[in-house]
Amino acid sequence: MGDIREILKLCAECIKGNLGEGDLLEKLLAEARKLGLSEEFARRLLGLMLDERHRIRGEVTPPSGLKLREFASKVQELQRGGEKVMRLELGEPDFSAPPSVVEAACRALQEGLSKYGPATGIKELRQALASKLSERFGVDLKLDNVVITAGGTFAVYGSIEAVTKPGDEVVVIEPAWPLYAHQIRWLGRRVLAIKTRFEDDWDPVEELQEKVSKLTKLIILNYPNNPTGKILDKGSLKAVLELAEDVGAWVLSDEVYMDFCYKDRFVSTLEFPIEKKIVVNSFSKTWGMTGFRVGYIVSDPEIAMKVARAQNTAMTCIPEFVQRAALAALNDEESARRNVELVGERLKILYEELSKSKLIEVKPPEGAMYVFPRIKIKGFDSWKFAWMLLERKRVSIAPGACFGEDYNNHLRISAVLDGEPLREACRRIREAIEEYS
Amino acid sequence: MGDIREILKLCAECIKGNLGEGDLLEKLLAEARKLGLSEEFARRLLGLMLDERHRIRGEVTPPSGLKLREFASKVQELQRGGEKVMRLELGEPDFSAPPSVVEAACRALQEGLSKYGPATGIKELRQALASKLSERFGVDLKLDNVVITAGGTFAVYGSIEAVTKPGDEVVVIEPAWPLYAHQIRWLGRRVLAIKTRFEDDWDPVEELQEKVSKLTKLIILNYPNNPTGKILDKGSLKAVLELAEDVGAWVLSDEVYMDFCYKDRFVSTLEFPIEKKIVVNSFSKTWGMTGFRVGYIVSDPEIAMKVARAQNTAMTCIPEFVQRAALAALNDEESARRNVELVGERLKILYEELSKSKLIEVKPPEGAMYVFPRIKIKGFDSWKFAWMLLERKRVSIAPGACFGEDYNNHLRISAVLDGEPLREACRRIREAIEEYS
Repeated sequence: MGDIREILKLCAECIKGNLGEGDLLEKLLAEARKLGLSEEFARRLLGLMLDERHRIRGEVTPPSGLKLREFASKVQELQRGGEKVMRLELGEPDFSAPPSVVEAACRALQEGLSKYGPATGIKELRQALASKLSERFGVDLKLDNVVITAGGTFAVYGSIEAVTKPGDEVVVIEPAWPLYAHQIRWLGRRVLAIKTRFEDDWDPVEELQEKVSKLTKLIILNYPNNPTGKILDKGSLKAVLELAEDVGAWVLSDEVYMDFCYKDRFVSTLEFPIEKKIVVNSFSKTWGMTGFRVGYIVSDPEIAMKVARAQNTAMTCIPEFVQRAALAALNDEESARRNVELVGERLKILYEELSKSKLIEVKPPEGAMYVFPRIKIKGFDSWKFAWMLLERKRVSIAPGACFGEDYNNHLRISAVLDGEPLREACRRIREAIEEYS
Repeated sequence: MGDIREILKLCAECIKGNLGEGDLLEKLLAEARKLGLSEEFARRLLGLMLDERHRIRGEVTPPSGLKLREFASKVQELQRGGEKVMRLELGEPDFSAPPSVVEAACRALQEGLSKYGPATGIKELRQALASKLSERFGVDLKLDNVVITAGGTFAVYGSIEAVTKPGDEVVVIEPAWPLYAHQIRWLGRRVLAIKTRFEDDWDPVEELQEKVSKLTKLIILNYPNNPTGKILDKGSLKAVLELAEDVGAWVLSDEVYMDFCYKDRFVSTLEFPIEKKIVVNSFSKTWGMTGFRVGYIVSDPEIAMKVARAQNTAMTCIPEFVQRAALAALNDEESARRNVELVGERLKILYEELSKSKLIEVKPPEGAMYVFPRIKIKGFDSWKFAWMLLERKRVSIAPGACFGEDYNNHLRISAVLDGEPLREACRRIREAIEEYS
């Protein structure tokens, strides 16, 4: 009879010791096999021990973008108090859903399309997406490859659940949308952060090749990127996908900004013949439908079913009238084109205006809805600056620190204001930077 | 340096041994304290070992209602093929959302209320619910006690996440809506099933007193009950809540059928001054809004925030136009009253008609939308009967086996058809029962 106290004693030694994750896992797996225990048990045990090591060493978990939410609340408070604030901190377009979408939602509501539906989403929308994406990217997708989700957020959440287990390592490329790491930790998986740099043109390939290993179960990509606007060229994307294939890891490619591509043609991960891929997308950005909460994943049918099952477990299904609205959006290419053009013009303005300051380094925008300039001031504190900018100039931006601890000398500025106000906001940002230094 | 292989060897002995959960946990907790490891680590380790024991012993996890979904798909297929099926297997009212609700949703859509919103839900709806519930149950709820969720489903899911940890024990009272156990296992918690019986009038108190222990972290209640229609009287509810308090467990009271109460006044768990309580509710049943996916939880502000955080993590927020529809529903008491009356009349018909068979024992309905009769045939197989009934008589019901393995001689029949068709369906059920025996 194994003594449970002895187990804990040994665990404590391991946790407090210095053996690396890879070594620990290898030993655990070999021993589990011998003892007739499952690989999953060994992996989860490792995850548990690493979590506890983390806790004991007092390693602080980053704040998951919660501070940005508090900041946004403060901005709203000012606005409610009658103050005018030029808001550039949001990850949400200022344009609303087009009339075609609103009408489709209302029509569906009036027709009583508000009953329980399949957790996979309705067939019409899945089929329409399969056809549209097949045509656009020259691939052959079927309805079974597509599952409709509660926004891009659940698409990512459900995908992480579908292809990894607690304790597994998931790679996030920083700077990154904070929710990735937050979701990974929330689900009991472990984050391996890969850092990219302004001076390397945000290229992740080398760092990935160095850090990704057999321990890696999933790599999350997001191009066009939030916050940098970077788009990975086809060669680099190929290198990353091959690397994932080499180590047996899944790739989750978050392509919610795919339409906001201002540099060549957008190349989707769908176009590559690797097996372990999930593409995530959303109607939120292209059609200004953030509050509808509708997105989708594309993967092999088995993974698609797993994501549907996760969605069924958490929320049964998503409203059919919302899905009918999404279907209308898909057919409203004119609105999509107009929105994409609008954001492109604004990104040019942001680039032009911010470049006027010698203290601001900004790259020509490639895609998404953001610029992520670097501030050439030693010891620059992006949070301090954000508060100062808000208080003195009534402009709000997202501090670089929200996207990874190495980005405190960056700002994320969103293309969510029209031309003239946007120029004015940039003028104020330049002024505030001068005053800061 | 602790040897990780030795750990696994000892774990394997423990897993394959016969030491009970309580003993294992006690030893683990005592040792963890001595070693400076967290209680959470010890608990999660135990959960892990018990899961593995479960796997090794080949204990089969119940099918989580998936079979019922397959059955429903088959029914839909028949319907699409032009067959008329009288559907009584659904957990969904046949009435649709009232015009007031549809109009409110459309108005909100047209006003552009389709942007990101707070993960807690909009203040207006939270405040309206706090006021309404306070008045109805004589309590003093504030906006901070209420969080709007993606249906009752996420309300339960987020609540389990908020008050328990992986490895924790959660009590479910059977017969039960299969999603409870499914969610609990999905989240890595452990199910302790309490069985109630027809001949004891479905009373759970005694069995709870016997099985609930310090290991129990959460007890899920659901009255008026799906599938039995049972309503716990005030004395029994009090006894259960006191028991929970004694062992330090949380109570989650799923009150989605609270309006469908045909026996005295409905007594909510909100009325009891215990601290560790969460009440779950939904707009789905009372107003026929199943496909809107909107519900809510009521708890202390700290737990409410945790549920909101879970929702934020999984889906960012829920659509504002859906919440505006819910607000309109709350003010449409007339529709609620009409729906509740309708279901009440149908339950009476079900009781009356099913009582005509000597092979069917059915209790006078107390609440919810179901009857859960017992079939007096030795060796009765509820799944076999359901298929036979569908094939021969074109009536669909939910087999009792869906709600727990002890209920194979029961059927769940939903009050979701109008009077005359409902009588006809009951006639066919009686016939089929005669033919079965």
